[in-house]
Amino acid sequence: MTGSSKLTDKKDIAVSTRVRLARNLKEYPFATKLDAKRAKDMISAVRDALEKSPALNAKLKYIAMDGLDDLIIQSFVERHLISPEFANSRSERALLLSDDEHISIMLNEEDHIRLQVMGDGFCPDKCLKEAVMLDMLLDETLTIAFDEELGYLTHCPTNLGTGLRASVMMHLPMLTRFGEISRMVADTGKIGIAVRGVYGEGSKAKSDLYQISNQLTLGFSEDEIIERLTGITDQITARERALRKAAMTDARDTFEDRIFRSAAILRSARLLSAGEAENLISDLRLGVACNLISGIDFDEISRILYEIGPAGISLKNGSSLPPNDRDRQRAAYMRETLSSRLKAI
Amino acid sequence: MTGSSKLTDKKDIAVSTRVRLARNLKEYPFATKLDAKRAKDMISAVRDALEKSPALNAKLKYIAMDGLDDLIIQSFVERHLISPEFANSRSERALLLSDDEHISIMLNEEDHIRLQVMGDGFCPDKCLKEAVMLDMLLDETLTIAFDEELGYLTHCPTNLGTGLRASVMMHLPMLTRFGEISRMVADTGKIGIAVRGVYGEGSKAKSDLYQISNQLTLGFSEDEIIERLTGITDQITARERALRKAAMTDARDTFEDRIFRSAAILRSARLLSAGEAENLISDLRLGVACNLISGIDFDEISRILYEIGPAGISLKNGSSLPPNDRDRQRAAYMRETLSSRLKAI
Repeated sequence: MTGSSKLTDKKDIAVSTRVRLARNLKEYPFATKLDAKRAKDMISAVRDALEKSPALNAKLKYIAMDGLDDLIIQSFVERHLISPEFANSRSERALLLSDDEHISIMLNEEDHIRLQVMGDGFCPDKCLKEAVMLDMLLDETLTIAFDEELGYLTHCPTNLGTGLRASVMMHLPMLTRFGEISRMVADTGKIGIAVRGVYGEGSKAKSDLYQISNQLTLGFSEDEIIERLTGITDQITARERALRKAAMTDARDTFEDRIFRSAAILRSARLLSAGEAENLISDLRLGVACNLISGIDFDEISRILYEIGPAGISLKNGSSLPPNDRDRQRAAYMRETLSSRLKAI
Repeated sequence: MTGSSKLTDKKDIAVSTRVRLARNLKEYPFATKLDAKRAKDMISAVRDALEKSPALNAKLKYIAMDGLDDLIIQSFVERHLISPEFANSRSERALLLSDDEHISIMLNEEDHIRLQVMGDGFCPDKCLKEAVMLDMLLDETLTIAFDEELGYLTHCPTNLGTGLRASVMMHLPMLTRFGEISRMVADTGKIGIAVRGVYGEGSKAKSDLYQISNQLTLGFSEDEIIERLTGITDQITARERALRKAAMTDARDTFEDRIFRSAAILRSARLLSAGEAENLISDLRLGVACNLISGIDFDEISRILYEIGPAGISLKNGSSLPPNDRDRQRAAYMRETLSSRLKAI
């Protein structure tokens, strides 16, 4: 592995890392040609592989999607465990999930197998290593579609080759504030790296979070893909850090004021919409990164962000809630979580 | 005394009470005809009266206005100890002030003597009683201009008769929010009671505070004036209380949310303009009145409001400050004052 050994986990800016491998079984047609019976068989084959491998079986539990409650499925989407597309149609679909949820494998999404490994901060090497290990374990029992020239065969040609997508979720409040995101999108696009606002198509990204990911899967080795991604995230990190430092030097009063107001509102509000909470949490995270706020760490903030979506808040209550009730529950949850942690703001 | 004995001090709504007596010395012309020398003599005469009366001398200290620093004078205005007009021209003017500042007597304002007694909450009877007692003590040595038919003679005919103006500063956030102030102004105007926003001429009143005062001084006894004022403030109090109760019943979520957000911002902001702080303090006071916020009482909130004006904040620093520095110092003062008191918000 290259590139990242000289780097820290960059948690002041890198929220989390995901590595995804797209794989298909040789004996089954791709998803669009896969009828219900063959889809069932395909899923059974993977399930058998799971049961035959003590290593896989110990890590992952099998979850049939059509047996799940709507709220739970929606909360999986909010926690990035499954794609929104996967949630939309549930028959002949299943999920393999680790207890700590850092591994999730969607069965019968666009590809037969979509294997995802997540980690906190910037850790593509670690995620890739674990994904490759899981892939090898599956490969012991299953016959994966592979071509000597093209590499791994996938439903969509953009995933051909390594089938690898590595993405880093980055917190870029200052680049957002200074309007530098669109230029960054254009620059990185030229070299095959995509920058996308999380849940934000064109409009402002949720919590100033952006996914930075490789677009090219063919013609590069896994290590080369990770190396390029690392290089780009290093550049983005340096720029975001420079803007933060400048704000702390040149406009410290207004910078601090905004951060402490946001933290105070998060801790004391009685009604919080998901959108407002996400914006305030962006300021809170920035405050921790700039050593203005203590008592809470980056990973705790990430957990909070995963838990305050409409489904997550409803689940805490045990059933679906109307929006105003969710806003009240969300505020109560934030208050409960932050009142003991943020004493000194 | 009548009217108020059946009432509480109404501190949930009545912030403070002021009673003012306008008096003039018989041997001296009114202010517009008073030259510098005669004005000096007039002030000396009052000062002599002070020194000859052990009771007055123990209560009041003599302060020559032309010897005072600008900041101190401005802070007197912010604390309602002197009128803005009195602050504008200082030569041949003096102030008699009690240590706790609840008594202030302007010498050579519009009238020779403007005697003011202030108290917390609704207490016109108590203030009047003390003002009358002080007036009697002055009358022992000085010859006050008095006409058997007209009563006390004053520079402006609107103050003729009793020379009494009694005013109650009321906190009316809900009447303000529901747009009922202008109707109230019209209704009370018909019976000779004025409602004026504090520092607010037409625009929104500072901190949702209004002065309710009698306009008529002639043709009524002191007790009748106080009785009318009490009746009107009772009606206004009942209406404001009803609106608060309705909000707590019908829109509790949004009502609480606003109050707790305001309190949180007051406690945690790093920059606060006087205007914003005043608006937030209105919500804080409303929160205390509705038993949502504890740890701070009404009188403490009134003190804070008197201390966060531009001059008050500069004085804490020891010298005049530019606006941005004042906003920072004001926020620091609020944080220091509230962080220990508002623990449970």
